[in-house]
Amino acid sequence: MSEPTSWGGVPVDELVEQFGTPLYVYDGAVIAERFRGLRDRLHSGVEIYYSLKANPNISVCALLHSLGARAEVSSMAELVTTQRAGVPAEQVMFLGPGKSRDELTTCLKDGVTLICESLAELDLIDELADGLGTVARVVLRVNPSFAVKGSGLTMGGKPRQFGIDEAILMEQPGLAGRHRSVRLCGFQSYLGTRFLAEDMIVENTRRILELAERLSAHLGVRLELVDVGGGLGVAYFDGERDLDPELLVDQLNPVFAAFRDRNPDVRMVMEMGRYLVGHSGVYAVQVRYVKESMGERFAVTDGGTNHHMAAVGIGSFVKRNFPIRLLNRQSTAEPVKWNVTGPLCTPSDTIGKAAALPGDLRPGDVIGVERSGAYGPTASPVYFLSHGYPAEVLIHQGRPRLVRARDDVQSMLAAQILHDFR
Amino acid sequence: MSEPTSWGGVPVDELVEQFGTPLYVYDGAVIAERFRGLRDRLHSGVEIYYSLKANPNISVCALLHSLGARAEVSSMAELVTTQRAGVPAEQVMFLGPGKSRDELTTCLKDGVTLICESLAELDLIDELADGLGTVARVVLRVNPSFAVKGSGLTMGGKPRQFGIDEAILMEQPGLAGRHRSVRLCGFQSYLGTRFLAEDMIVENTRRILELAERLSAHLGVRLELVDVGGGLGVAYFDGERDLDPELLVDQLNPVFAAFRDRNPDVRMVMEMGRYLVGHSGVYAVQVRYVKESMGERFAVTDGGTNHHMAAVGIGSFVKRNFPIRLLNRQSTAEPVKWNVTGPLCTPSDTIGKAAALPGDLRPGDVIGVERSGAYGPTASPVYFLSHGYPAEVLIHQGRPRLVRARDDVQSMLAAQILHDFR
Repeated sequence: MSEPTSWGGVPVDELVEQFGTPLYVYDGAVIAERFRGLRDRLHSGVEIYYSLKANPNISVCALLHSLGARAEVSSMAELVTTQRAGVPAEQVMFLGPGKSRDELTTCLKDGVTLICESLAELDLIDELADGLGTVARVVLRVNPSFAVKGSGLTMGGKPRQFGIDEAILMEQPGLAGRHRSVRLCGFQSYLGTRFLAEDMIVENTRRILELAERLSAHLGVRLELVDVGGGLGVAYFDGERDLDPELLVDQLNPVFAAFRDRNPDVRMVMEMGRYLVGHSGVYAVQVRYVKESMGERFAVTDGGTNHHMAAVGIGSFVKRNFPIRLLNRQSTAEPVKWNVTGPLCTPSDTIGKAAALPGDLRPGDVIGVERSGAYGPTASPVYFLSHGYPAEVLIHQGRPRLVRARDDVQSMLAAQILHDFR
Repeated sequence: MSEPTSWGGVPVDELVEQFGTPLYVYDGAVIAERFRGLRDRLHSGVEIYYSLKANPNISVCALLHSLGARAEVSSMAELVTTQRAGVPAEQVMFLGPGKSRDELTTCLKDGVTLICESLAELDLIDELADGLGTVARVVLRVNPSFAVKGSGLTMGGKPRQFGIDEAILMEQPGLAGRHRSVRLCGFQSYLGTRFLAEDMIVENTRRILELAERLSAHLGVRLELVDVGGGLGVAYFDGERDLDPELLVDQLNPVFAAFRDRNPDVRMVMEMGRYLVGHSGVYAVQVRYVKESMGERFAVTDGGTNHHMAAVGIGSFVKRNFPIRLLNRQSTAEPVKWNVTGPLCTPSDTIGKAAALPGDLRPGDVIGVERSGAYGPTASPVYFLSHGYPAEVLIHQGRPRLVRARDDVQSMLAAQILHDFR
């Protein structure tokens, strides 16, 4: 009872034959749908910045740019990615608590907006801009005194390496005029990640916009831009519900509109990564062996923790499964509980724990971990046991294109240097 | 009050100037000391296999081989590493729950000993050996019915993707004669990892040796080799004590000697990775910014989770610090509590939480996370935020040698492919 199946409009067998496994496949149509679903409804004055950290592949970046997204980056390689993908410098923001002098200098030369995370960094930006004979346009990241509940990881209201405490900023009334080569032009704040409640995002946004107004008045900053962060989540686990973009925007737009009324010339920015690309991706692994141990079934596959740490749940106290299913065929076999494990030598290398999959699972079958378009291989220990980076494919207009070549033994070992110890 | 300091006999300033940060430095003298401290005391009949997964760098492998270590590998790239490092095939064992046909075929052709992890894999080995016109020498990995306590991660006595359940093997009395192209020649078992109690390792070893004798008799396997695994730990955290090699060997040697008396021609094997290389390494990061947030001090450095996930403690419920200290100078400043954080955009990117470090910590200072020679960059998400793989240096006879080049933007992006979506 096996019929061919497809993913993103392409037969799974064809994807596996052409690109091999383990494999990440991103469906460009889903990325476009996620972007447009929000863009078409959101207040037209709000600029959407794609956070490359979620998936820094250059073709993913180029696709989002072609749809109208701007780019938020946190390293030199991410910045160069946006440049090669054709994103103009004035549509790029650079953020991160530990920027190097090189990174800052490049941003200053290229005209990339800097989001500054500490008073010490502000001094350094001033010094570097001075040396370049330019004036740096700088957005200050603020660590607010308040926290907003409802996110997977709260950022505000706690001691953090990110941003400048609101209380510390309030003690710097002359800050806007202090640096010769810096022009403070706005504020950013990021209150949490993996928000799945619309009203929390709205509350978050409202409070950050107010914070920016309060701080600009107090510090004498002529407000040009407010970045309300993002943190829009994706439902991964049982009992979670995806954000409803219509519901979200219905509540969010009045908040932006009211701010725009009070501040007609001020740019409004949202950042998002996971929300745009999370749904688009599937991590496809092939079963190599099936076995039983002490009454439990195991499907041992060719990929695991090394490519998809988030699905394995390292960092979570309780293992919860991402959506996982048989990808390469239909099966009428009764679902039973399977442990889907990878090639590593640790029991935690389990991408599906007691996952319901057909009882007739067998070597050669392809299993897909869904909603895997964000924080996949780049957020995983791809060198562990030296298996290397998987192939990545982006489907665009029905055609699968390789966007990242799979590592092989040569590429894995190329940077290592052998010395003679005999 | 700043005097120059050294690491592995080399001034830290010199290491930083020559190789930059973030940087892993391995002291070859420590690796040699750890190996010889055990080798010189251990029963001469016991062969020590270095588990490359702990640190697969080719020069580390070559150094250990020059000292007399053999090699245990789990992927094609690790196997090729041993070949390039000059380890003869007959001194290499290949282990892992999800070996590919390619990996198995290469081992069969090259004469690498296979440690087989399931009955399905045994059938596949037989089929491949048959096709090659050879007979495969195979060691069976056993998942014992018993568990030994006292390890950081218990492997035996639970449902596992590794090995074949002891109970399942006991139901296969004709196994030794079942496959035309397989010769079963021994057993391996691995009961846990991060053992820090000598008596637990001794108990572990005794029970695995007995298990091998019991199984060989029951299955009709002519015993040629028993691999007792390893799992020798390293003390990382407050309250932990390192293994005493003298104490360990005093108890262990009689167990091996008794086995050897009963089985004069049977090879005895121990595997170890972390124990040999863990102490040798330091992860050196440079402070970029110091700041305060809500009463806590932060030193923001150029490296973190992306290079050293173990030190960050992802996967542990409670964050505990690896040994961490100021590396580039002596300071007489009073120690105070610092959060040492990295360049990533997540609060968990903290390699030292409330760590006691001098109060005068400042930009440019180098902080070292010690005992970082095992499960460092290869076990970390080195592509996260696209910062790339750090440089790795091995000090041999007082001379630091680059053994892995640092990634740069070009090497990070080389495998990505840009398509045009306009």
